[in-house]
Amino acid sequence: MQKSLNRVQEAFLRLVHNRAYSHAYNALKQMHPADLAQLLPYLQEREQQWFVETLLKTRKLGGVISELDENKVLEFLELVPQEEFVKVLEEINADDAADLIAGLPEGQRQEIFERLSGSQKKAVGKLLGYAPDTAGGIMSPEFVSMEQTLTVGEAIDQLRAKASGEKEEIYNIYICDADDQLVGVVSFRDLVLSPPDKTLQDIMERNPVAVRPHANQELVADMIARYNLLSVPVIDENHRLIGRITVDDAIDVLKEEATEDIYHLGNLAQEDHISTPVWTSAKPRALWLLINLGTAVLAAATISLFSETISRFVILAALMPIVSGMGGNAGTQSLTVVVRGLALGEVDWSLALKVIWKELAVGLFNGVIIGAVIGVLTYLWYHNLTLAMVMVLAMVGNLIIAALAGAFIPLLLRKLRQDPALASSIFVTTATDVGGFLLFLGLSTIFIKLIIS
Amino acid sequence: MQKSLNRVQEAFLRLVHNRAYSHAYNALKQMHPADLAQLLPYLQEREQQWFVETLLKTRKLGGVISELDENKVLEFLELVPQEEFVKVLEEINADDAADLIAGLPEGQRQEIFERLSGSQKKAVGKLLGYAPDTAGGIMSPEFVSMEQTLTVGEAIDQLRAKASGEKEEIYNIYICDADDQLVGVVSFRDLVLSPPDKTLQDIMERNPVAVRPHANQELVADMIARYNLLSVPVIDENHRLIGRITVDDAIDVLKEEATEDIYHLGNLAQEDHISTPVWTSAKPRALWLLINLGTAVLAAATISLFSETISRFVILAALMPIVSGMGGNAGTQSLTVVVRGLALGEVDWSLALKVIWKELAVGLFNGVIIGAVIGVLTYLWYHNLTLAMVMVLAMVGNLIIAALAGAFIPLLLRKLRQDPALASSIFVTTATDVGGFLLFLGLSTIFIKLIIS
Repeated sequence: MQKSLNRVQEAFLRLVHNRAYSHAYNALKQMHPADLAQLLPYLQEREQQWFVETLLKTRKLGGVISELDENKVLEFLELVPQEEFVKVLEEINADDAADLIAGLPEGQRQEIFERLSGSQKKAVGKLLGYAPDTAGGIMSPEFVSMEQTLTVGEAIDQLRAKASGEKEEIYNIYICDADDQLVGVVSFRDLVLSPPDKTLQDIMERNPVAVRPHANQELVADMIARYNLLSVPVIDENHRLIGRITVDDAIDVLKEEATEDIYHLGNLAQEDHISTPVWTSAKPRALWLLINLGTAVLAAATISLFSETISRFVILAALMPIVSGMGGNAGTQSLTVVVRGLALGEVDWSLALKVIWKELAVGLFNGVIIGAVIGVLTYLWYHNLTLAMVMVLAMVGNLIIAALAGAFIPLLLRKLRQDPALASSIFVTTATDVGGFLLFLGLSTIFIKLIIS
Repeated sequence: MQKSLNRVQEAFLRLVHNRAYSHAYNALKQMHPADLAQLLPYLQEREQQWFVETLLKTRKLGGVISELDENKVLEFLELVPQEEFVKVLEEINADDAADLIAGLPEGQRQEIFERLSGSQKKAVGKLLGYAPDTAGGIMSPEFVSMEQTLTVGEAIDQLRAKASGEKEEIYNIYICDADDQLVGVVSFRDLVLSPPDKTLQDIMERNPVAVRPHANQELVADMIARYNLLSVPVIDENHRLIGRITVDDAIDVLKEEATEDIYHLGNLAQEDHISTPVWTSAKPRALWLLINLGTAVLAAATISLFSETISRFVILAALMPIVSGMGGNAGTQSLTVVVRGLALGEVDWSLALKVIWKELAVGLFNGVIIGAVIGVLTYLWYHNLTLAMVMVLAMVGNLIIAALAGAFIPLLLRKLRQDPALASSIFVTTATDVGGFLLFLGLSTIFIKLIIS
């Protein structure tokens, strides 16, 4: 469960905090870029300056920056002189460089891009042409491709020459025909296990799964996860190989998408992290809160319809949030199950009736349970049987509303090709707030004579 | 975004629905087990029977079952005769078989296990000894290990003999010394690129990262994701290799953990899916709702402290849920960011002050924004300046409470080695409900003379 820092990182931080910089320098040289990438927030301002300078000196900055999410790169960059940053961008993989440039504030983006030189500029330019959440936006344009007429022995010889210059891990060799069209794939395993005089054509897997550059990144990640792939080739409209997406890219996408779902359920924008500045976090949250405020005002208006009833029996004011609140909780439960089921591909619109029916049954069941408990409590508290019965009926009714709204709203949003997590929690709590107050105060108004007698 | 069914799956379903069973049979034979695994809920009862029988006939059932989450296997198993199921368990990988058996109802578990034969029984028995959420619980006991004194050429020869019988993908060769202790790892890439007369000792990566069988699965998945690994070896206390965990296992764990976090934030237990029976879903949800009911009663008790004030000015009853509700929304925002930050390893207790300070600033900022808006609205609605001022003060105060609770509670839970997502939303909404009612009704009571004059 302890996910934060490992022992190596903690030891390094102690050295820095104790100003044992030469020891820290040696420790840093041994550390994995992914471990170093996590440390910036744990350092004081002066230590951060030393840290970044040391990463530059030891030529580790590129590796570290490649490991960072876009939202955390900006913090690093404030500490790096622009010319050094450009140098780093030229050293790292083109796809990482493109991600970093895409994450820069608009003003700097063009400026930094223009300063790149030659081949890296060309590669990065191509990648920047794809939207960041597509296959093209996450693919690496670096891969090993060979012609199918080569023998296994020749392929291995070529590989020795090529692989030494490669920056990224290679998992397999893509086989292309004379027109550069993708026709097959050969894994290292097949290469090792095949006699050297066989041709690649003989051992390759034909018609491998491939994706187009504008395919949604989520779809690609899902494909890699579902079929247990190590990489997926990306091909253009002429079936020519233009890049590949590896399983570690897929993991990043899956994490990103999980964060997005969790954030949308919590009424948050995606660019909101612990390390983002106050203003960057506060602005989008304020927007969501304002939308929520609208629904809260709606609920308040519902209540004020019944001020006459409340003024005659003020205890209702204390009891009414119980009905609306429990509806909100139960609705969130249904919503969460359906949103997650949609994200994991367990359900779609064609199963909507089945899903709604099941949630309805759960809502009815739990409505009876919770209604019974709160009914007894209300009776014990106020010795008023009618009030207790109103409480039971309102609770059962609102938990049914909660189940229907929680199941139906995300399914409908998906059917309309919207993100089922986005804003659905607002719709659901609006339904349960307004529904809860209407039911409880409406029933109370009907039975008010019995209640106050 | 369309994650549910792909074209192959949809075409297959059409064939089945149209009772074109012989075409469907041929289509099924070509389909990937992962694609087939998803389809059960989309079939009618009679179709399901045909489906499972056909999977058995085509010997695809094992592959399909291996792709299923434990919570979905039971549905399948109801359709398979026990003796057939035992046969399937003997064909699939030992780790998948162990997962399936671990997911069975307690009564059947021992019975099915006893019916396994020989080597599979032994392998499964060992794996069942580890908790399901540990490295031991998810590892595969099937791997390729060789002695370091072999040459590359000899290794390739051995591999040809071994690999043909292997059921799972092999990504690398583990190198063990004479005492079976893990000393290195050789990737296929290194094997391909090294001259055949070199020894494995010369080319292996020494002291590879390894984990113990009782390590938490989340930690292992995190390690694989962080260092972009394809697999991690599992070693016992004597440093002997006992299994390996591959990147596709890590992806499953990451998905599972994301589901767990989302569920805990939505007050749900983990075994609750769209396909789980009503009763299995309803029971744990009812438990959570009962806990929530406790906090709702607490909030109601807070309100009833002020029934005197409310009876003198009944409009307060309509306005008070705005303050508590907005606090709940803002608190959920802070909570979500901090819980996700903890899950992604971006933060730990040592950064607590920094995090709380930032959330406090966001809370104050948004408190002023939302307070101003609702203040103006209240004034326009009721033409009561004191009431509007009370609303502003209560809103700012409650959004500060929301920020503090949302940031502090998950950090504290992590510090206490609890799951920061579990139950924290209940603590936060209790704080914002009680806090909101206390602030708004308390201030109203203090200024009641000014309000009703």
